[in-house]
Amino acid sequence: MITSFLARSTRASARLSTSLTTPISGLRFKSTGMFSKVKRIGFVGLGNMGLPMATNLFNGFKHEADFIVYDINQKTTSTFVKDHNTDPNNKDKVKVAKSPLEVAQQATVIVTMLPASQHVESVYFGKTGLLDGLTDKHLVMDASTIDQSMAVRVAKDLHEKGAKAIDAPVSGGTGGAQAGTLTFMVGSRTDADFDIAKPYLAKMGKNIVYCGTNGNGQVAKICNNMLLGISMIATSETMNLGVRMGMDPKLLAGILNTSSGRCWSSEVYNPCPGVQENSAASRGYTGGFGMPLMAKDLRLAVNAAVETKSTVLLGALAQQLYNQMAANKEYENLDFSAAYKWLSENGK
Amino acid sequence: MITSFLARSTRASARLSTSLTTPISGLRFKSTGMFSKVKRIGFVGLGNMGLPMATNLFNGFKHEADFIVYDINQKTTSTFVKDHNTDPNNKDKVKVAKSPLEVAQQATVIVTMLPASQHVESVYFGKTGLLDGLTDKHLVMDASTIDQSMAVRVAKDLHEKGAKAIDAPVSGGTGGAQAGTLTFMVGSRTDADFDIAKPYLAKMGKNIVYCGTNGNGQVAKICNNMLLGISMIATSETMNLGVRMGMDPKLLAGILNTSSGRCWSSEVYNPCPGVQENSAASRGYTGGFGMPLMAKDLRLAVNAAVETKSTVLLGALAQQLYNQMAANKEYENLDFSAAYKWLSENGK
Amino acid sequence: MITSFLARSTRASARLSTSLTTPISGLRFKSTGMFSKVKRIGFVGLGNMGLPMATNLFNGFKHEADFIVYDINQKTTSTFVKDHNTDPNNKDKVKVAKSPLEVAQQATVIVTMLPASQHVESVYFGKTGLLDGLTDKHLVMDASTIDQSMAVRVAKDLHEKGAKAIDAPVSGGTGGAQAGTLTFMVGSRTDADFDIAKPYLAKMGKNIVYCGTNGNGQVAKICNNMLLGISMIATSETMNLGVRMGMDPKLLAGILNTSSGRCWSSEVYNPCPGVQENSAASRGYTGGFGMPLMAKDLRLAVNAAVETKSTVLLGALAQQLYNQMAANKEYENLDFSAAYKWLSENGK
Amino acid sequence: MITSFLARSTRASARLSTSLTTPISGLRFKSTGMFSKVKRIGFVGLGNMGLPMATNLFNGFKHEADFIVYDINQKTTSTFVKDHNTDPNNKDKVKVAKSPLEVAQQATVIVTMLPASQHVESVYFGKTGLLDGLTDKHLVMDASTIDQSMAVRVAKDLHEKGAKAIDAPVSGGTGGAQAGTLTFMVGSRTDADFDIAKPYLAKMGKNIVYCGTNGNGQVAKICNNMLLGISMIATSETMNLGVRMGMDPKLLAGILNTSSGRCWSSEVYNPCPGVQENSAASRGYTGGFGMPLMAKDLRLAVNAAVETKSTVLLGALAQQLYNQMAANKEYENLDFSAAYKWLSENGK
Repeated sequence: MITSFLARSTRASARLSTSLTTPISGLRFKSTGMFSKVKRIGFVGLGNMGLPMATNLFNGFKHEADFIVYDINQKTTSTFVKDHNTDPNNKDKVKVAKSPLEVAQQATVIVTMLPASQHVESVYFGKTGLLDGLTDKHLVMDASTIDQSMAVRVAKDLHEKGAKAIDAPVSGGTGGAQAGTLTFMVGSRTDADFDIAKPYLAKMGKNIVYCGTNGNGQVAKICNNMLLGISMIATSETMNLGVRMGMDPKLLAGILNTSSGRCWSSEVYNPCPGVQENSAASRGYTGGFGMPLMAKDLRLAVNAAVETKSTVLLGALAQQLYNQMAANKEYENLDFSAAYKWLSENGK
Repeated sequence: MITSFLARSTRASARLSTSLTTPISGLRFKSTGMFSKVKRIGFVGLGNMGLPMATNLFNGFKHEADFIVYDINQKTTSTFVKDHNTDPNNKDKVKVAKSPLEVAQQATVIVTMLPASQHVESVYFGKTGLLDGLTDKHLVMDASTIDQSMAVRVAKDLHEKGAKAIDAPVSGGTGGAQAGTLTFMVGSRTDADFDIAKPYLAKMGKNIVYCGTNGNGQVAKICNNMLLGISMIATSETMNLGVRMGMDPKLLAGILNTSSGRCWSSEVYNPCPGVQENSAASRGYTGGFGMPLMAKDLRLAVNAAVETKSTVLLGALAQQLYNQMAANKEYENLDFSAAYKWLSENGK
Repeated sequence: MITSFLARSTRASARLSTSLTTPISGLRFKSTGMFSKVKRIGFVGLGNMGLPMATNLFNGFKHEADFIVYDINQKTTSTFVKDHNTDPNNKDKVKVAKSPLEVAQQATVIVTMLPASQHVESVYFGKTGLLDGLTDKHLVMDASTIDQSMAVRVAKDLHEKGAKAIDAPVSGGTGGAQAGTLTFMVGSRTDADFDIAKPYLAKMGKNIVYCGTNGNGQVAKICNNMLLGISMIATSETMNLGVRMGMDPKLLAGILNTSSGRCWSSEVYNPCPGVQENSAASRGYTGGFGMPLMAKDLRLAVNAAVETKSTVLLGALAQQLYNQMAANKEYENLDFSAAYKWLSENGK
Repeated sequence: MITSFLARSTRASARLSTSLTTPISGLRFKSTGMFSKVKRIGFVGLGNMGLPMATNLFNGFKHEADFIVYDINQKTTSTFVKDHNTDPNNKDKVKVAKSPLEVAQQATVIVTMLPASQHVESVYFGKTGLLDGLTDKHLVMDASTIDQSMAVRVAKDLHEKGAKAIDAPVSGGTGGAQAGTLTFMVGSRTDADFDIAKPYLAKMGKNIVYCGTNGNGQVAKICNNMLLGISMIATSETMNLGVRMGMDPKLLAGILNTSSGRCWSSEVYNPCPGVQENSAASRGYTGGFGMPLMAKDLRLAVNAAVETKSTVLLGALAQQLYNQMAANKEYENLDFSAAYKWLSENGK
């Protein structure tokens, strides 16, 4: 699992452990940072990631709060309601909203999980978007991976309404979403906002990493995934070169991993089949983190580089390479570590 | 120190511990793998690396063996003799040879430490080269970083003479050479050859890593340094991007290092000044592993890729970038992590 | 001049020559493709490019039509009115509009020249944008260089209003804008639309190139400039390499230009100073096509590649390099051929 | 044909036309630059290129001189002798030498055509190499494409023997070799040497281009082919991008070719099938200039860049890409313009 390496951030851990010693009663979780008097929790975006996240959030809070969900795909929301709205004493336990606006009008704690910046723009700022329904009673957490600039704009507009805004992109994939072991990289205006958001995120993830002010959750995710994306291709080039020069791949990986070449991609997720038993490479590159997702994250990185006048030569090249593999029928559904397969199938 | 991360290889360690329990008497170290009846040890190449290595080898064996040294720079050999030939009872303790051939004629254990493949070719195969003086009594260890093909050719020709051949390129830089803490990546024909060579290498280094057959020492070094060279630029691009997007560099490094982006360059040797106290970055990029050395190692990697029909897109790009910095007066003498400085000084 | 190389497109030329034999009377230019009964021409965007273009358009049509202009910078529009509204018999000859909408309400032929996609979006679709004022009497020509997708969206929305839409990005720079020698790369729904737009464009440019349907003007410009941008760096690398290998640059350029390496950048605009008398390189890289403009066009190209799942490895690398130079104080104001200077100042 | 674009160099042409007005008698061609009293011409290297070149040289001089040939492949030399040694009055008209040395001992004008630097080193400087047989009566022309440094070394050693040395790498491929329409890029110590060599080269090629001093023939070829290699990939990326954005390839090529993006690869040898009738692309990329040859020439370019501390980012990337295609079974035998096929087959 990609996310299993992320430790709880120290500041957060410190707070969390304190909070756990505090007695919890009813819906007031002041000392743990829980948002007070939550009656209904909203969730917008029930896709491959959003659906299992919403499920975990529901299971974690079903005794404290009711739910309202929204997705443009009505089949998904119907299923969610059918699966969870099973309390004979509360027929409104889980409702489907007609629009994001209705979510904002009925719920005070809201999570959104959307594919890209344009969907976030539409859900927050569109005609029946969230924004018009928000007040100073709201806590809104966006778990989408989007441009920093859009995350900053969302936060600014929410703050003007008095609402609390959290950007919290995740890593961990659909596996992590289902298991509730995602990592959240969190940007928030204040420590207090971070503390208030944390218990909700903790129902969906294992590691809640503090990254600084609003937008910095996106920065952390974009930066980490750019470095990861480059390292994976670099490890693939290195393993392929070494094997063709005659070295045993396990021996080579062992030397790299005790040397200055080591990286997460060589140590934990080696792209050469057989080097590690549990790597995607050793199960035909199935599952894991798909080519289009890595291509998307690197695109965000390259765009951010242009905006900030930063040079990312290797980042731009890696973006092209994942893009190329994501556009290839044989590779588009494989894990991003299939960069090794791409290289090694050539020249035989 | 770049080399401090390399553990002793398991197989070697196993043998070494066995050998240490065996009684040692006189110059016969059969059970420890020490070459029998060594009377004189030879060293060819007393440059920035070779001189401190030869000094450590001398200090480690001065009670068991005499020495003979060769370098085209006679000033260096004179100084070495003056410094070490101080035994009043043995005026021949340390001698200067007129040629590599003379080294081969007088010494049975020989270490060579030369800048590049063409120097190895000349020292071994030139008119008064080592080769013509070698017999089945010889153990020759080449610590130079060269093409795999040249290492394989050296081994083949030495084996035809009956000599034992070891390729043992190092990492650790001049600091490691002086402190005797180098890492040797060792290729040898047999385990027995590896065992015989090990006690000599152990006087000059701390980690003696078994890499397989002759030439594989070079493969391991080339592969590790290619991955290292790419990772360092990737880390520099990432840190620079993150900082320009507004993140605190220490916080960003902390997140990367507990996440899937982590690599040796981000964790141990972060190129952003101030992130780690003891990094080259935090002392103005002085000392460390210089731009021309990284450029040279990546050139070997790119050449090896062409020879083996392997694709190294990121490797070739990184090679160009180190080459560019090595050709720049302001950067040529800096540590290779100054790739961060190169990126960060732009666009301000 | 970058634009002097573009010949009139054949199809257009054919039509134009036919049209010139047709008698012209009053404001009806039906046979030449001129839009019938134009009373007022509008121009939105009086920047470095727009101002001289509007001036040439005014001078070309001042006897047939009145004018209305709009720019967010009121100083610019005031100056334009002061300079051109000099007819004592027609105090409304040139007016300033309060919004793009007012331009649409008063003029039937409109040209827009804006910096980027987001400005086009705002001017056309914003609250007081053009769109709401458009009818089936309108001809609107957008000379901005923007994403193909935005150009297609503009055309679609204009067509729904019944208006004629033309995308006509230019090359030729401010020099071409002033001299009226720009090249327009034109996308239009029909040949008839192209013919109607052509006489207006012909007052501002010398070469009016037919590129196909709406959006294709942008495609042609983006593709040409990507190839140009890569070729310029390639020529710079080649000239720098040859000179360092000892060749006279004029001799080398001569050989390339009669050989398979030749390109516009080597033949017409050689980046090595002294090779061609009139190149930007021979006047210190002043004037010409600036680094930020090339960086912007390559960004459009890379974005288009991602959208269409095309691989542009060299394009992405060139984008990073122009971006790097555009972010450097010493290079940001230089012509894009200063890529040679960038390379040649290293390694001396 | 790749070489058909290279005009005769002006200086050479001027001399040649003068010489043609001079009466020619017997074997003395002093005024035309022909080497005096040639009795036997030698040719070393009868491979795919060398064999047709030697044939043309034989046919051009069979009335003035006898021949001696050498190749490690004895079958080839036997065939050459059988085919050409048909004069009943002169049984020694064409002989096979036992070594390059014997060629030097019997012929005074010698042409060599070898695959790479190491073969040149062996043929010139090996145990029974040319060098030991050379005198101040010799003219030696090396048509191999090799490192500049090796060409310079050859010239230097030949000059020490008093011989005249010419480096004259060719372009034009096996088709040009057979048709006698090769282009020679010529480095020579003096104009006089160039003039003396020219009549021989003119029997094998159409364009004899003066490039300056010894080694510069190699520089010109390496530089031209690096620019060509990059331009071809750039043109392929551009055509592929434009086509995927919806443009007709012929229309796009037409616009590029009248614009600043034009290059030899877009104008004369467009890699998109159907754009030009006679391109390799329009006959399935068969024939032409193969992937391994372009990969080899770019390797020489990248090596030269490292030697001269020049940066060739695009050159290094292009080298990797041709290398990748040369290592792929489906592409290794195709023309280098199949870079377009490589890109366009992805993402469909």
